[in-house]
Amino acid sequence: MRVAIQGERGSFSDEAARRLCGRPQLKCCTNFEEVFRSLAARQCNAAVIPIENTLAGSVGANYDLLRREAVWIGGETSVRIAHQLLAAPGVSLRRIRRVLSHPVALEQCRRFLARHPHWEVVPFYDTAGSAKHVMAARLADTAAIAGVAASREYGARILRRGIEDNKQNFTRFFLLYRRSRPVARADKISLVFTTRNRPGALFRCLSAFALRDLSLTRIASRPVAGRPWEYHFYLDLLGHLNEDRVRNAIVHLRELADEVKILGWYRAGAKPLA
Amino acid sequence: MRVAIQGERGSFSDEAARRLCGRPQLKCCTNFEEVFRSLAARQCNAAVIPIENTLAGSVGANYDLLRREAVWIGGETSVRIAHQLLAAPGVSLRRIRRVLSHPVALEQCRRFLARHPHWEVVPFYDTAGSAKHVMAARLADTAAIAGVAASREYGARILRRGIEDNKQNFTRFFLLYRRSRPVARADKISLVFTTRNRPGALFRCLSAFALRDLSLTRIASRPVAGRPWEYHFYLDLLGHLNEDRVRNAIVHLRELADEVKILGWYRAGAKPLA
Repeated sequence: MRVAIQGERGSFSDEAARRLCGRPQLKCCTNFEEVFRSLAARQCNAAVIPIENTLAGSVGANYDLLRREAVWIGGETSVRIAHQLLAAPGVSLRRIRRVLSHPVALEQCRRFLARHPHWEVVPFYDTAGSAKHVMAARLADTAAIAGVAASREYGARILRRGIEDNKQNFTRFFLLYRRSRPVARADKISLVFTTRNRPGALFRCLSAFALRDLSLTRIASRPVAGRPWEYHFYLDLLGHLNEDRVRNAIVHLRELADEVKILGWYRAGAKPLA
Repeated sequence: MRVAIQGERGSFSDEAARRLCGRPQLKCCTNFEEVFRSLAARQCNAAVIPIENTLAGSVGANYDLLRREAVWIGGETSVRIAHQLLAAPGVSLRRIRRVLSHPVALEQCRRFLARHPHWEVVPFYDTAGSAKHVMAARLADTAAIAGVAASREYGARILRRGIEDNKQNFTRFFLLYRRSRPVARADKISLVFTTRNRPGALFRCLSAFALRDLSLTRIASRPVAGRPWEYHFYLDLLGHLNEDRVRNAIVHLRELADEVKILGWYRAGAKPLA
């Protein structure tokens, strides 16, 4: 199975892809648009994308792409994000002058970095990519911040373990296919809609689910491009698409909302596993 | 009046501060935490922060800071974000090899940048800061992306105007004080709360407003740090804090939700002005 991810081998997306797809062959992309393009162009069978982090919040760009592109969410998982300070073997902590990583990882290690105020902190496109770069260039004064998998992948040495500020750090990932497919024990649905601009519009839309005792696990909003101060709403709910009350709730939602799109039906798997 | 902003003179935050405070003396900070710290430490009388953009969405870090810190939202405005390609006088477009700007600005000019694939695109901490840097270092092969105000502030030449992908590009800013104060014609309220983890919890919380015909203009969610897959909800609503139905709605919300905090009461001003 060939799976597109954003980032390099040894990244947290790679870990999520292995958890969702066994031992996939990876197609490593530099940005999320490229991941979606690869899937549309049949360069891979599936894609794995991060959608939210328990500290940093939503990955807005991926919410936008899920709505715009023809894809289907067929699975989810969550990965515990533990950051390590990595360097080439033989490089000691006191020789470090610079540290590279993805901006979100740098932000999540702020307290650790504050204890090393003389280090230059440089944003990089990927956590694992920063480890790959440090090792490929054999940098003797530069460290990377990435996961344990990246240290194994590139043979980097771990100088400090678990340098993240908050241990309750998980990222939720979606498994995407080009089109809908039945998934065993699928019990969670994602959808997006736009409200009409009138008082109580969102409340009314949520009533379609609340009045049928359907549980929402997530609501997120994203701006509507070209219509300032209007929003798309993304819901995740527990239920089965072939269940009457879910079907009825969606029919009801279509009466109340615009641009309703079902994004996927998959087995709930976002509970912390690690 | 001394006002803290994130970014440099000539930034969009500077423009918002001038719109909200007349001709303030600016305290330019490198990040949002420093803006909040300056206000708490009485190094300024007020602060102006971006809270959402009509294309990029919420500024999550500022939502988190509003909830955690002791501040009061006393005003809002929206600024039209128009990006210009700036360089030192005498530098022509064909000599450009590199372009600097804030990551959100780079993202918003993606189509323009795609037409110049040989340019190196380098993220910078601030739009106006990138113009300041290009001018201070007299870089002959480097352009900055920033607003018209930055070109005036630093004497940079505009090589290309309006290079943003989407013209419906506005950022909403809040004016913050250390403590609550009466504002003339205040008609909008911001608050934050946490739902209890049970089916229909958010729907019930919204009913406190919907059943009283109160209009919400915005709902945003942010993760609760340390409690994976739980969320803080931020609401903006039209109304007066001294009005009975608003008071009653808030009393009702306190029955249904946890950690209710009123963030401010101010005059609605987020309608596009430019």
